[in-house]
Order: sequence, then structure tokens, then C-alpha cells
Amino acid sequence: MAELNIKLTVAYDGTAYHGWANQPGLKTIHGTLVECFSRLFGRKVGICGASRTDAGVHALGQTANICIDTPIPVANMQSAMNSYLPKDIAVTSVEVAPRGFDPINHATGKHYRYTLNTAKVRPVHSINYCWHYPYTLDTDKMDRAGRLMRCTHDFRTFASAKDHRRDSIRTLSRVDVRREGDWIYIDVEGNRFMYNMVRNIAGTLVDIGRGRWVPEDITEMLEARDRRCAGQLAPPQGLCLVKVYY
Amino acid sequence: MAELNIKLTVAYDGTAYHGWANQPGLKTIHGTLVECFSRLFGRKVGICGASRTDAGVHALGQTANICIDTPIPVANMQSAMNSYLPKDIAVTSVEVAPRGFDPINHATGKHYRYTLNTAKVRPVHSINYCWHYPYTLDTDKMDRAGRLMRCTHDFRTFASAKDHRRDSIRTLSRVDVRREGDWIYIDVEGNRFMYNMVRNIAGTLVDIGRGRWVPEDITEMLEARDRRCAGQLAPPQGLCLVKVYY
Repeated sequence: MAELNIKLTVAYDGTAYHGWANQPGLKTIHGTLVECFSRLFGRKVGICGASRTDAGVHALGQTANICIDTPIPVANMQSAMNSYLPKDIAVTSVEVAPRGFDPINHATGKHYRYTLNTAKVRPVHSINYCWHYPYTLDTDKMDRAGRLMRCTHDFRTFASAKDHRRDSIRTLSRVDVRREGDWIYIDVEGNRFMYNMVRNIAGTLVDIGRGRWVPEDITEMLEARDRRCAGQLAPPQGLCLVKVYY
Repeated sequence: MAELNIKLTVAYDGTAYHGWANQPGLKTIHGTLVECFSRLFGRKVGICGASRTDAGVHALGQTANICIDTPIPVANMQSAMNSYLPKDIAVTSVEVAPRGFDPINHATGKHYRYTLNTAKVRPVHSINYCWHYPYTLDTDKMDRAGRLMRCTHDFRTFASAKDHRRDSIRTLSRVDVRREGDWIYIDVEGNRFMYNMVRNIAGTLVDIGRGRWVPEDITEMLEARDRRCAGQLAPPQGLCLVKVYY
């Protein structure tokens, strides 16, 4: 049998997990996939994921790969994997990738969605999938601020102060804010992201929506290259990794 | 202060609870409400709910009442209650009811919704709010069968064998089955319900949808007055008490 490089798309409810990345003694998405797939294939498998999502963050389209030679036909692999995984994680597609496919370095972009609910009473059936923010938000202002973040900028201001990567130039192709009844969706697409970047953008847009700043302040914030100039960090459960582009 | 009879509408995610009704040593919706409201009002309060939902069953519009004299103004009561409740339970309305209002005996009807998902891959973010049934279901047949259950019948066949109430004549005004993409919704409205009645109806409609029986078999099932003549019991997490009518 030849070793195959298998590209997986994975959806998960991050509520019960300490994020994607392995941490000794804690239940993580990556650790759960490794454990379940190792049982399925009868030996320890290595898995590499495109995005290290934080504790409580969700995914519809996380991408990962495993290199494996197995007698299990590719056509049966998805349902075999799903029968070994817990109900809050599911493989939504399996494809054979080129030999050198690398889910991190070959990614050309990612789509994240941040979800808010502004109803007076918390939505009990969606409370783990949104930021419940029961106040008035001006979504037109939020959307105008989002537009000012588009294109290529230095996003140091919107990265966690803990992110020490030198290069903080990123390109966002989309920062859209739209309302549907009590729900507000912030869709962010870009080439690469710094640590906490989408949650810092979402929190800052919320601060603008409630009037702490005007949309045009975004330009000055970007120029400051200082985390202290941006708004609050939005909580993790509102964030979902929708898709990774290749 | 005069004692008020307060009518509450309550929404909850039943996932983490052993149903509505109090059970010693187990976390229940009723027990949680009693505990939280007793802390809020500074003394033990009694709560009566319209429907004893099972473990894992959800509600958008459970109705309950408490009789209380308190200095807390009615206008502030909802937000006070919600600040004491856990995030998976919320009071969605508070009103002063007539002195003799009784949520069980004054109810004129209830609306339940049963939700199925037929996607090949389980919907990880909704897995606690539906029956994931990844097979083909003929919803036209299910809807036709539902129509045959409408109006007044003896529903003994669709009650749990454990329900020993003599009177099993009930009136259903609505048993609708509709599909939206991978989702199927079964809406059932009626005057009163026997134990497990909606879940037995949902399970039987699923059996009809996959071809075990034809819709017209419903008539014979009703006539049999025997639980063994109906289909499977649908799992609890697909069921939601939408509204109680008065």
C-alpha cells in the first residue's frame, strides 16, 4: 500500500474542548482526532490542522491532513472516521491530496464568522454559539468601520500582545457586518491571521456599534500598531472558522 | 404587600437536565428554577409548570407560575430572574395572572415541534437539538399520515405503555410535516397530551417516511389502542415545547 496524503474538512462544536492544539491533560480537538483515528487505523497517526482555534471557538470547515497507508478505501474513510468520533466533531469531506499538500502553508485564505445576538433575553439554544449582547448596536457604523479594515494593512493593533511575530502585515478581502433580526454576523476573510485578530476586530466593531468610537477611528488605530488602541476582545464562543481556502 | 400570581414563560436547553420534574439528587429544570428563585426572593418558592418535559427535551415556551409577595416590582422581575438563572434557562416573559390562574388546568392546548436532520454528516452545532437520521424520508407520506391523526381520537396506541390514565381521548388540531433542505419539522398541536405521545407520533411518522408502513395504516393503529402497534419512540433531543395556549 502506498502512503496517501488525505485532506480532511472537519466541523466541530468547540464548547467542550480546550481549543484545537494539543495540551497535556486537557481535552482538545486535535487530541480527540488523534486518539479516535489512531483507534480506527490501529496505530498512532499524525494530524496537522490549518488553524489553531481557541477554547470555545467552533468550526464548520477546519482543514487538516493525515498521511496514512491503510486498507480502508478512501470512499469509506469519512463514515469510518465519523463512527469513531464523538458527536460534537464530524469529518465533512475526505479527499486524496497531492503528496506534498500542507494545510498550513498552502492555505491562501480563511473565512471566519463572528455571531452576536442582541435580543433582550438570551437565546438559550444558541448561547454557546454567539456573544449575547443585549444592547443597541449601530450595524451601519460597524460595517463602515469594517470597510476601513479591508485591503492590506499592518494589523499589529488587532493582534494579541502575546503574538510576537515580526510580520504583522495582513490582507483582509472582506469585513462585512449584517443584521438579521436579533442576530448580527461579522464575516471576515483574509490571507493570514494573527493571534486573537478576528476576536479583537469583532470586539472593536462592537465598541464602535455602541458609540465608543466613530468608524473613521479605525484608520488611526491601525496606524498606532498598539493593542491598547483597539477595543475589547470578543468572547470565543461567537467565533466560527467557516472555510479554509487553497 | 399582596401576594401576586405570576405567570412565567420559560425557555430552556434541556441537554444538561434530567427533565422538568424534580427528582431527588438530580439536576432538573424545576429544581433549578426553585433554587434560583428562592435565592432571589430570599425564601423557598413553589413553582408549577404546565408540562413535565423529559430529560433532554427543550422548551421555547414552557409556562409556569409562582405565587409570591415581594418588594421587587413586576417590571424588574424578568431581568432579576434571568440574572439568577444559568445561561441555558431564561424567563422570556413575566405577567401578573388572575389570582386563581393554574398553568396545568387552565391550559387549552400545547404546541410541540419535533426536529429531524437527514444530512449524511451529523450537524455538530445542532446535534443536541435534533434527531440525526441520515436516510431518505418521504415527507409527503409523513404529512399524509399526520393528517389522519388530526381531530379527536383515542390515542392509547401513541402513549407510553407506562401511562395508565383511563382517559386517552385527545384532540390534535395540527400534525404538519415539512422539509427545509436537510431539516424536517413535525409540528403537533393539541388540547392535551399523554406521556411520550409526541415522540411516539414522531417515531411512527419516521417509520412511515422510510416505508415500513403506508400513511393509511395510521387508522388501524389508532383503532388498536395498543402501544405495540405504533412505531419507534423518537429520541428526546429532537423535541421542543414551543408554546402553551390559555
